[in-house]
Amino acid sequence: MTESPVSPVPDEEYREAAVDLLGAIAYGELSAFDRLAEDARLAPTLADKMAIGAMAAGEFANLEKLCSRIRELGGDPAEAMAAFQQGFDDFHLHTAPSDYYEGLIKAYVGDGLAADFYREVAAYLDADTRAVIIESLENSGQTEFVVDAVRSGIAADPRLAGRLALWGRRLRGEALTQAQRVAAERDALSALLTGGVDRPGFDLAALGRMFTRLTERHAERMAELGLDA
Amino acid sequence: MTESPVSPVPDEEYREAAVDLLGAIAYGELSAFDRLAEDARLAPTLADKMAIGAMAAGEFANLEKLCSRIRELGGDPAEAMAAFQQGFDDFHLHTAPSDYYEGLIKAYVGDGLAADFYREVAAYLDADTRAVIIESLENSGQTEFVVDAVRSGIAADPRLAGRLALWGRRLRGEALTQAQRVAAERDALSALLTGGVDRPGFDLAALGRMFTRLTERHAERMAELGLDA
Repeated sequence: MTESPVSPVPDEEYREAAVDLLGAIAYGELSAFDRLAEDARLAPTLADKMAIGAMAAGEFANLEKLCSRIRELGGDPAEAMAAFQQGFDDFHLHTAPSDYYEGLIKAYVGDGLAADFYREVAAYLDADTRAVIIESLENSGQTEFVVDAVRSGIAADPRLAGRLALWGRRLRGEALTQAQRVAAERDALSALLTGGVDRPGFDLAALGRMFTRLTERHAERMAELGLDA
Repeated sequence: MTESPVSPVPDEEYREAAVDLLGAIAYGELSAFDRLAEDARLAPTLADKMAIGAMAAGEFANLEKLCSRIRELGGDPAEAMAAFQQGFDDFHLHTAPSDYYEGLIKAYVGDGLAADFYREVAAYLDADTRAVIIESLENSGQTEFVVDAVRSGIAADPRLAGRLALWGRRLRGEALTQAQRVAAERDALSALLTGGVDRPGFDLAALGRMFTRLTERHAERMAELGLDA
């Protein structure tokens, strides 16, 4: 990764955009925690319950790092997160898993896609904020456990593969729509992404390349699970 | 605390009892995690949701230390926990909180009482196991956050105090019944608690003093919350 294009003394608009992005990621991790804790309840064995619980606890540890950075930038974590609550809650309402496997795939593929998106955007932030974001996104739902559980589920019932492949496509569509809406609704964040006179941003071509990369990585994750993208 | 009365090379019966106790505590923390994650969903604000989520994630971190010690003693964590699953699930079924405050008090008073009981029993274990248990019980539900939330709830609606005091008494009764049942049903654990020819245990007088101490500490916790015991 190259050096950040942002000056070390952030202006007010930049600070707002950074707090916004951190707030979005933080609320995303809080709702991932909540959802994984719910998934743990559906787990067929105690060992599975512990594996999913560990994923949930991991999201929480990440959330705390993001909140510290929000405070360092002069923001209030709960306030920064609140702006994104409705959007994420709607997303979760539209993508409520109907069984244990759909929950696992949502954690693996959905959180993976969100993490890739945030990493792309983090490239436009100052080095400290970027480091916190990248660290907080490590292993978001990306555990061997999910791959093994989904692959053995499909081995036991091959009909699962078709339904879960459709589910993955639906998650991708809903997540990209949601990401677009989040970016568009928040003025400071939009300004950050489109750049300004003194700061580079995504131009249309760069945006297109980013979506291509997100789609490719999504397909790789689906393949790891043994599913068509 | 004095040195452990147990020899450093554990016999099979001792090993079984230690794995049993660690399994009970571990399953207790897994179900506390589950319950706190559910309580977080009821929290009125995002800040409260994060405070309770942090408590849930803390239970999970403790659980992992207990599982490592079970493995070191040659046990299987999921198997050790499974023996206590029904008992704990029954306890939670009988003490399902009917609102947000009852959930908070259950975390504070119920987990506090369980932690005191395990600490008492841990005094009869080898130093390494005892250290893991004591470390894993630190801050079980004992956060300033709960005290503040319950006290402000009562300040806003003084009628809450009577209902919550009754709830605390009910939790104490159910928890002590449950602890007794757990200890009695597991042979190795009973043998540990009652001692043997080469190992000291609780005699009846010691058992009585332990229950007095548990009851006193319970009353202290209720007082911290502003409630009659």
